[in-house]
Amino acid sequence: MIEPRTLKGFRDHLPAQALARERVLEIARRVYRSYGFAPIDTPALEYLEILTGKGSDETDKQLYRFKDHGGRDVGLRFDLTVPFARFAAQHVHDLGLPFKRYHMAAVWRGENTQRGRYREFMQCDFDTIGTTSPVADLEMVLVVHGLLAAIGIERFTIRVNDRRVLGGILGRLGLAERSTAVLRSLDKLGKATPEAVAAELSAHGVEAGAVAALLEMAGLSGPPADVLARLETLVGDSEQGRAGVAALTAIVAGARDAGVPDGRVVIDPSIARGLDYYTGVVLESFLDDLPTLGSICSGGRYDNLAGLYTKQPLPGVGASLGIDRLLAGLEELGQASTVETPAEVFLVHFDERHLADYLRIAAALREAGMGVEFFPEAKKVGQQLKLAAKRGFPAALVIGSDEFAAGTAQFKNLATQQSATIDWHGDLHVLADAVHSQLEAMRHT
Amino acid sequence: MIEPRTLKGFRDHLPAQALARERVLEIARRVYRSYGFAPIDTPALEYLEILTGKGSDETDKQLYRFKDHGGRDVGLRFDLTVPFARFAAQHVHDLGLPFKRYHMAAVWRGENTQRGRYREFMQCDFDTIGTTSPVADLEMVLVVHGLLAAIGIERFTIRVNDRRVLGGILGRLGLAERSTAVLRSLDKLGKATPEAVAAELSAHGVEAGAVAALLEMAGLSGPPADVLARLETLVGDSEQGRAGVAALTAIVAGARDAGVPDGRVVIDPSIARGLDYYTGVVLESFLDDLPTLGSICSGGRYDNLAGLYTKQPLPGVGASLGIDRLLAGLEELGQASTVETPAEVFLVHFDERHLADYLRIAAALREAGMGVEFFPEAKKVGQQLKLAAKRGFPAALVIGSDEFAAGTAQFKNLATQQSATIDWHGDLHVLADAVHSQLEAMRHT
Repeated sequence: MIEPRTLKGFRDHLPAQALARERVLEIARRVYRSYGFAPIDTPALEYLEILTGKGSDETDKQLYRFKDHGGRDVGLRFDLTVPFARFAAQHVHDLGLPFKRYHMAAVWRGENTQRGRYREFMQCDFDTIGTTSPVADLEMVLVVHGLLAAIGIERFTIRVNDRRVLGGILGRLGLAERSTAVLRSLDKLGKATPEAVAAELSAHGVEAGAVAALLEMAGLSGPPADVLARLETLVGDSEQGRAGVAALTAIVAGARDAGVPDGRVVIDPSIARGLDYYTGVVLESFLDDLPTLGSICSGGRYDNLAGLYTKQPLPGVGASLGIDRLLAGLEELGQASTVETPAEVFLVHFDERHLADYLRIAAALREAGMGVEFFPEAKKVGQQLKLAAKRGFPAALVIGSDEFAAGTAQFKNLATQQSATIDWHGDLHVLADAVHSQLEAMRHT
Repeated sequence: MIEPRTLKGFRDHLPAQALARERVLEIARRVYRSYGFAPIDTPALEYLEILTGKGSDETDKQLYRFKDHGGRDVGLRFDLTVPFARFAAQHVHDLGLPFKRYHMAAVWRGENTQRGRYREFMQCDFDTIGTTSPVADLEMVLVVHGLLAAIGIERFTIRVNDRRVLGGILGRLGLAERSTAVLRSLDKLGKATPEAVAAELSAHGVEAGAVAALLEMAGLSGPPADVLARLETLVGDSEQGRAGVAALTAIVAGARDAGVPDGRVVIDPSIARGLDYYTGVVLESFLDDLPTLGSICSGGRYDNLAGLYTKQPLPGVGASLGIDRLLAGLEELGQASTVETPAEVFLVHFDERHLADYLRIAAALREAGMGVEFFPEAKKVGQQLKLAAKRGFPAALVIGSDEFAAGTAQFKNLATQQSATIDWHGDLHVLADAVHSQLEAMRHT
C-alpha cells in the first residue's frame, strides 16, 4: 500500500477552499474582461534560459529545474511576468499594440515553507503593454478597485505612489546615486520605527536635514490633495518629481471621475515596490481590518517588459492579485465560506419507485437555473439530510409518495430546519417557480 | 538576446484560443455544478511513487520526473485520475460519501509530438465515488449530454455500452479466459474491416460461430430498444450479461425521463474503453459531423478507485471532457470563434480634453453589464477603429467634441461598418440603455 500524501509545501484544495477560490477567479475574470483585458495562457514548462535570464539570484535558487526527455534544460515558471515577457516578444506582431492581457495560473517556487508559504500558488496578473499613456496607469487603479469591491470587501485601501516622486526628492537632496540604499532603508518603515530608520540613514551618511525630509515624505498621509500639495513642495523644481506629482494628481482626479468613492485611493509616498523594475506609478492594496497581511494586490508601471528577448521597447503597466494571500486573509477575518457544494437544492431520494419523477423534477429545476444534487440512493431520509446539512446546502426538497399523491412538496431550510409546503399540483413549472421563490426569500433574510 | 520560444510540444494560447477555451471551461463548470459536483484541486507535482504506482508502462515512460530541492523523487501529473485516487484515499473521512467532484487542470506527458499531440493539455473530469447506484451511471450520461448541448454542438451522439454485456457474451461463448485478446481485436473495428478482425479472431482460435456472434454484437446499431432486444438474446442466461442489459435499459429510460432528445444516446456494443479499468457502463461521445476526431468525452464505471492507497473500496463512475480535442474539432468544422477580445464595446479616445467624460461613460456602460475597452491614447480615429476591427469588437462608440455638444454619440457596427446616432442628452443612463439595445439588436440579426 502506498501512503497517500502531498509533497511538503504543496496542498490539496478541498471543495470549500476550491469553491472560494473559483468565486474570486470568476470575479477577477469578469472585472478584467469588462475593461477589455483578454486571457492568454503559456506553458508551465519553459526553456531554463528563458526563466533564469530575468530572475534574481533568489528566484534562480528556487527554480524547479530538470532535463526533459530530449535532454533540454527546462524549468517550471516561478511567476507570470517572465513568461509574459517571452510571450510578448514572440507574438507582438500578431497581437498589435497596445495589448491588454490577463493570466491566471499556478506558479512554482521551491522556497522555504516557513511562514505559511506554499511552493505552488496562483497568480492573477493583468497588464497593458505598448503604451506610456497615463490613462493605462489610471485604469490599473480602477481595475484593482473594481476587483476588490466586486469580491465584496467593504473596507480596503489602495495606496498609490510614483517612483518619480521618490526619484525627484532624492535628486534634490543630492542622494540620487545612493537611492538603492536609501530606498531599502525607507522600505523598512512599518516594520521598524522611524527612529531606527533615521539612524540607519544617518549611518549611510545622509545628512540630518535630508533624513528629516525623507521621513516627512514617507510619513505623509491624509486627504490626497493635502499630500499632493506637500509633495509638490518637496520635489521643488525637479522635472522628474513634478511629473510624478502630476501623474498622481491625474489618478486621484480620474478615479473620482470614474466613480471611485473618496478614501479608497490614497497617496502613500512610502511605497516603493522593489528597487529596479518599476519606473512610474506604483500601487499596493490592503484590507483595512487586517493591514498586517500585507498587500493583496500590487503593481506599477515599467519602462520595458521584454528587453531580454526583443529590441522592441515594450513599456507597460499592470498589477497582480495575490489570491492565496487574500483568501487566507478572508479566512482570518471569518469571512471565508465553509460551504462544500456549488448547488442550492438537495433533492432527497425518498422512494425509488418515483425515480422518473425525481429525474423530471431535477431537470426542471436545472432548466430554471438552479443547481440540484439528487442523492443517488434511496437511503434513510435522515441520513441524506445529515449529509446535505454537513455540505452546506441551503435547502432540501423532500417529496415522498404521499406528497406525490397530494401534489405537494416539502421545502426544507437546512439552516433553520424550518419546512414549508409547496403546492405544485404535478406541474413542474409551478414547482420550479416556487422553489426559486423560496430560495430568493432565504437570501433576503 | 535570448530567443523567445516555447518548448517542443508546448504552445501558447493567444487571446482567440484562450477565449474559446475559457468559454468551454465556464460551461463545463456551470453544468457540473448544476448537478452538485464540487471543484477540487491537487498539486501539479506529486511523489513519484504515487504516479508510477497506478500508471501503465507507457505513462511511466512519458512522465516528467526529477529530484526536487530536498532530493525527493517527484513527477508532474499525467492525468487527473491518479491524483484523485490519492486525494480520495487521503481525505475520504472529511469528504463523506458519496462524493462528487470535478477537476479541470493541466496534465503533462512527454509523448511523441506527431499527430498534433501536445505535451501539456487540459483535462476536465467529473466523478461520483462511494456509490454503486445506477442513478450515478445515468447522471454521467445526463451530464455529458447537458455539457455538449450547452457548448452549442447541435449534432453529436453519446454511445453507451456496459462491460458486463461483453463479459456475459464472452462467457457464453467460452471465451472468458481469452477476453483481453478478443477485446483487443474487437477494438480495431472502425479502423480495420470486419473481415480483417474476423481473421484475427480466428487466428486466436475463436470458432467460426463465435466470431459471427461477436461481429454481430459489435455491429449492432439502430433504435436502443432494438439493440437491447438483440443483446438480451445474445447474453442468454448469463447473469452478468443480463445485469449489463438491465443497466443499459435503465439508462435509456432515465435519459428520456430527464428530457434527453431521442437519438442523442445510442447503445453501441462495440465500445469497450480500455481493458481493465472499467467494469460497468462505459461511454464515448462523437461529433456527428467529424466522427474521425474520436471521442470528445469518455468515461465509465469502475469498481475501485484508490486500491493502491487505501483498503476502503471506492467504487465510482465518471467521465472526462477532452477539451483540446473538442476545440480542435470545432476549429476544423469552422465553428471556432476568432474574436480576440472579451469586451463588446470599443470606446474611441477621440479628444483628450474629454477624458473625464470618457471615464464616466465607460464606468456607466460597465455598471450596466457591458465590457468596454477605452483606448488609452488620443490617436487618429481611423487607426483606433482599425485595431478594434482586427480584434473583433462587435461595436465602437465614437463621441467627439461635436457629439458632446449635441448630446449625441455614434454607435458603429464594426462588422457592417454601419453607424447609428444615439441621442443621450448627456444622461449616462440613457446612453448605457441605448448602447445595450443596439448590441441586443445586433445579436438578433
